Amino acid sequence: MTYCVGLKLDRGLVMAADTRTNAGLDNVATFKKLQVWEKTDDRVLCLLSAGNLAVTQAVVSLLGERIAHGESGTPSLHTVETMFQAARLVGQAIRDVRAIDGDALAKNSESFSVTFLLGGQIRGEAPRLFQIYSAGNFIEASADTPFLQIGEHKYGKPILDRVTDKEMRLGQAAKLVLLSFNSTLRSNLSVGMPIDMLLYNTDSFSAHRQTRIEENDPYFADLSRMWSEKLRDAVAEIPDFEI
Amino acid sequence: MTYCVGLKLDRGLVMAADTRTNAGLDNVATFKKLQVWEKTDDRVLCLLSAGNLAVTQAVVSLLGERIAHGESGTPSLHTVETMFQAARLVGQAIRDVRAIDGDALAKNSESFSVTFLLGGQIRGEAPRLFQIYSAGNFIEASADTPFLQIGEHKYGKPILDRVTDKEMRLGQAAKLVLLSFNSTLRSNLSVGMPIDMLLYNTDSFSAHRQTRIEENDPYFADLSRMWSEKLRDAVAEIPDFEI
Repeated sequence: MTYCVGLKLDRGLVMAADTRTNAGLDNVATFKKLQVWEKTDDRVLCLLSAGNLAVTQAVVSLLGERIAHGESGTPSLHTVETMFQAARLVGQAIRDVRAIDGDALAKNSESFSVTFLLGGQIRGEAPRLFQIYSAGNFIEASADTPFLQIGEHKYGKPILDRVTDKEMRLGQAAKLVLLSFNSTLRSNLSVGMPIDMLLYNTDSFSAHRQTRIEENDPYFADLSRMWSEKLRDAVAEIPDFEI
Repeated sequence: MTYCVGLKLDRGLVMAADTRTNAGLDNVATFKKLQVWEKTDDRVLCLLSAGNLAVTQAVVSLLGERIAHGESGTPSLHTVETMFQAARLVGQAIRDVRAIDGDALAKNSESFSVTFLLGGQIRGEAPRLFQIYSAGNFIEASADTPFLQIGEHKYGKPILDRVTDKEMRLGQAAKLVLLSFNSTLRSNLSVGMPIDMLLYNTDSFSAHRQTRIEENDPYFADLSRMWSEKLRDAVAEIPDFEI
């Protein structure tokens, strides 16, 4: 499995993905599932992926090739004018990969299941965040639902449900995302460190706030320890149930 | 869906189940999924159920009939000498229901999927806790893993993972279980109040600590509010992520 989160806030986007992939518990590896395309002063796009790794990598490669070698007139993530058009390109790339590999996967009883989160900003629009399905169709995050999750999302959802606030600073939101990852990592083996993260400030059109949080990262270790202590304290401060 | 938890602690057992059942989102109802059999000074058994309601009710009815009208020599939950034997009786009842209804369900493309938690104590043994599968086989909770969950278990697992301690008092453990329910209720519509709960004290052979926590229960409302506040405070006290 995988765990990826995207938050769309007033001040920008926070996008994060773990890096564990596994084909059975005895075949575990680390792959980057956060992909960034940047065109300085014009756009930043960030794609997070969950599902069949061969399929998600093919989608990312196809999108990359179309940027690099696109014929003039053929739209690519570097040329489309809105995030909606960008999400449609990702959806089309999924459909293209299915046309190439879908039958062979089906014959092998393998799943074509993939999901993507696409967040970013193209000059002329506010930042937007989409969740794109295996069929290539998609939904968009709104003010009512400022975060989207894909992969192993349940363990880390309660804390996001309770605390997310679209007026948060990005550093606050990144902390919250890491707490959500912390709960997921603790309860589920199929999600693993390191965590790749992008903090994108609205109207910066720059992806410089990008980092990889390693297993031994001191901030993450402190966050993890403090969170355990504070949760235990919080539980202790609530009166016991009496019957 | 459903959410049920069983904790096996040094001082006894805490068993809890929600009461929501649904056949699609447009057909929601309340059913008791916590069943207690008590034989004063000899045994207390508590069965929590998740899955196809017709199947789980049939299993519970079959077990009840065998207690009420068992032929002499035929074992029932009131006569077996160990909790292991009791778990086998539950497993057998599942297989019996499958023999009766399985083919008809399959023809209707309906699932026979059920899971049970069986906790209790029979004089001569310590309290024990089992998880029984659709196939009628089962696992037992150990000191390493003092809690078992069935149904929609992921949202409420992180808090149990972090705080459960087998030396807890039952009132503390019940509070923790209600926090776990609180997270689940908030994040998932298919789990609903009221919550049925049994606190069983080791060697009491009495099920008198049994209650139903209703939607408007003042303790649960306070717990819910305090927990939200404390979580927000805990998040705020951790330094923001800097990059």
